[in-house]
Amino acid sequence: MFSHFVKSALPRCEFTFTYTAWQHTRGWCGASTNLDQARTLLQLIVDRGFISPGHANVELFKRGTTCSYGPLGSELRENVLHQWWRSMTGSRQQVFEINTPSSSGSPDIVAGRWGHLRIVEPDDVRNVLNETELSREQLVHSVRMFLQRSPLLRTNLIQGALEQFVPLFELVNRKLPFGIAETGRCFQPSQDGSAEVTHGSLVWFCSPRTSSQWLDHWARQRLKWWRKDELEEVASRGVKIYYKFPWGQEALEVLSSRGDCELLQMHKGVRSKFQSRDGQKSVAHIVSITGNIDRGLLAFLSNSLQLHNREDIKQKLHQRKVLKLHPLLAPVKVALGIGRGATMELRQVCEGLWQELKEAKISAWPGYLETSPVPMEQLNSKYDEMGVLFTAVISENTLESGLLQVRSRDTTIKETMHISELNNFLSRYISAADNM
Amino acid sequence: MFSHFVKSALPRCEFTFTYTAWQHTRGWCGASTNLDQARTLLQLIVDRGFISPGHANVELFKRGTTCSYGPLGSELRENVLHQWWRSMTGSRQQVFEINTPSSSGSPDIVAGRWGHLRIVEPDDVRNVLNETELSREQLVHSVRMFLQRSPLLRTNLIQGALEQFVPLFELVNRKLPFGIAETGRCFQPSQDGSAEVTHGSLVWFCSPRTSSQWLDHWARQRLKWWRKDELEEVASRGVKIYYKFPWGQEALEVLSSRGDCELLQMHKGVRSKFQSRDGQKSVAHIVSITGNIDRGLLAFLSNSLQLHNREDIKQKLHQRKVLKLHPLLAPVKVALGIGRGATMELRQVCEGLWQELKEAKISAWPGYLETSPVPMEQLNSKYDEMGVLFTAVISENTLESGLLQVRSRDTTIKETMHISELNNFLSRYISAADNM
Repeated sequence: MFSHFVKSALPRCEFTFTYTAWQHTRGWCGASTNLDQARTLLQLIVDRGFISPGHANVELFKRGTTCSYGPLGSELRENVLHQWWRSMTGSRQQVFEINTPSSSGSPDIVAGRWGHLRIVEPDDVRNVLNETELSREQLVHSVRMFLQRSPLLRTNLIQGALEQFVPLFELVNRKLPFGIAETGRCFQPSQDGSAEVTHGSLVWFCSPRTSSQWLDHWARQRLKWWRKDELEEVASRGVKIYYKFPWGQEALEVLSSRGDCELLQMHKGVRSKFQSRDGQKSVAHIVSITGNIDRGLLAFLSNSLQLHNREDIKQKLHQRKVLKLHPLLAPVKVALGIGRGATMELRQVCEGLWQELKEAKISAWPGYLETSPVPMEQLNSKYDEMGVLFTAVISENTLESGLLQVRSRDTTIKETMHISELNNFLSRYISAADNM
Repeated sequence: MFSHFVKSALPRCEFTFTYTAWQHTRGWCGASTNLDQARTLLQLIVDRGFISPGHANVELFKRGTTCSYGPLGSELRENVLHQWWRSMTGSRQQVFEINTPSSSGSPDIVAGRWGHLRIVEPDDVRNVLNETELSREQLVHSVRMFLQRSPLLRTNLIQGALEQFVPLFELVNRKLPFGIAETGRCFQPSQDGSAEVTHGSLVWFCSPRTSSQWLDHWARQRLKWWRKDELEEVASRGVKIYYKFPWGQEALEVLSSRGDCELLQMHKGVRSKFQSRDGQKSVAHIVSITGNIDRGLLAFLSNSLQLHNREDIKQKLHQRKVLKLHPLLAPVKVALGIGRGATMELRQVCEGLWQELKEAKISAWPGYLETSPVPMEQLNSKYDEMGVLFTAVISENTLESGLLQVRSRDTTIKETMHISELNNFLSRYISAADNM
């Protein structure tokens, strides 16, 4: 979905793909404008309710961690997750979906693989601290032991897939390759204690001799998904896909060839447990793909912001801000507003239309609920900043002839169409964008 | 979706709605058969890959907490979540979706409202414990202070909605009522340290004089959703919807009228922040609806299991187990199997069909990937236990005439239809069930 990546070699056989955002601004401005752009973007995202206001929340968002998303951000996040999932599981019959807890209290899990963060009930610690007969040394020991028994929070989704490997391997009659996919929250240590990230994960089990081909396959597939036109050859232990944000470059997705050591460790070296039934008796090797959905969402937003300067009639300079989000990702496909006419009747028409669109799974913004009249130009700016694909205005004219005006975000051109055509028009528009 | 609830009054104005499951077995059996049924259900759920094997995991599942779900359980969970969400947000324009982190490190949050569980990085505790110059008393104090600064894990989704109240109230021009909906994982203290639950939550803000009507409205709506025919009158502080499992009664959903104290507390008594713009200047009151999705899933499974005894030709007694899950909830809508004929060619036909169904968002089970031949009767039992709505068999005949055999889970009747009709037939069947 991005239009241009660059490639550069990293040490340890890691290839890097970076999309240079803001290229169009780079020709004529320096770092400060980059930061201006960043500020404009973050301000817009808060103003339009993609995320909750507040410095701490914006910081979480900027870091690519889970923050408090408002209505538009939630819908966008859902859309990104859905498209990510579709691209990973859509074309393959051998990908199984799982869903696992984000914490584990099991005593036989290996802490290192799960991460370090633990869930603690402070009352229980207080009980330990209140044991007055314990010496200082005994107290330290008790607190340590208590922590060691506390449930661990996951840092990634790979552990869940490893734990479900055996029953699913049996389900596919021990035939390789197959994959286990999951999306969900993970917890990572950070300077403030801990940070949540939403991961999308595919753990792909294949024979050892095909693992580098599979890494190559998935890297191509993932590049195609993130960007959709350029393919790069990769054949190595790992691949990272980066995005260049105005404040620096960050990884969106990590692909790695992990060999069989994790399965060996889990099954205490008993290879027969993960040996395939084919002639070769291949031992399952792992290729993992982990995408950061929160950061992906931020990259899509960054990449879609376009700024246009223009003068109004009085020669005052205005900046038009448009979030040109992909039609599949745009959180709102159409805003329904009302023009001149009997408000009550127009609102009724809008409500019927809103319901119809809802049933067709086309998310519509009920602009007609707005009670104070707002000039159309101002509304259009607002909807452009929300990334709304189309704005439909229902007026007196609609009550008489059934005709309404539809304005496109991308062309700003207004078209007249019959109210009965809107649903179909939008569905066709969105699926056409899907097939591009 | 359940067929019978009973009502009984609870103290403190709480009404209780209970669905007596297993009624058909109760006429002729006692408690031990109930437990047999429970055992059969849990065994089936593990055998068919709804959840991962293992005693600890089954216990989590039985308690209505988040466990490790296999492919069928994940899909079922998605379907339950989707239908829950649809029922809460589908018909109302004033319900906003949000998505918030499950932990908070903010110093000004009120611990009591968030719960007590905290996220701890053990290395940081170890640093405190290693400060040798501290006396025993100072050490206890340091650990206490450390805990107090650690991020809290949420126990429910209400806090997130309260935090987003102000910007969303502005978005709707301070007009009541409106709602904030979220689904996500919450953490609750349990005997093993902590347990995760998946909640669905709607926090509904309305004027004080309408709050009991809204509680009544939502209680009716929720009862209708969980069961779909009987309405009960409620007008009180709270309502619980229970399900009677073979091992006892448990709450699926809790509705409560919460007044304005939480908003008052949050905004330190400044009423103007949550006063509506209408003539009455109403202060927003809260009605909350919290559903336990994991337990709901278990209730749907419990409720759908049917056992039929029958004799085979040799007069041996067999038990037919069928999961009669609602067509919208069934994780697999159709299983594609192959009959007699050239395996390679038949498989190709199946793969094409699988793709076509996938694109139409009808989940199909790739039974044709099965390499060892299994008698059709055995396959049918397996698919019945998986709750698969239909089984389609592609054979030699299909290659010649395009005809295939489709067996229904609910009637066990086999029909012949043209391969090009299958997609349409399934879509129509599922949407017919939706409109019932």
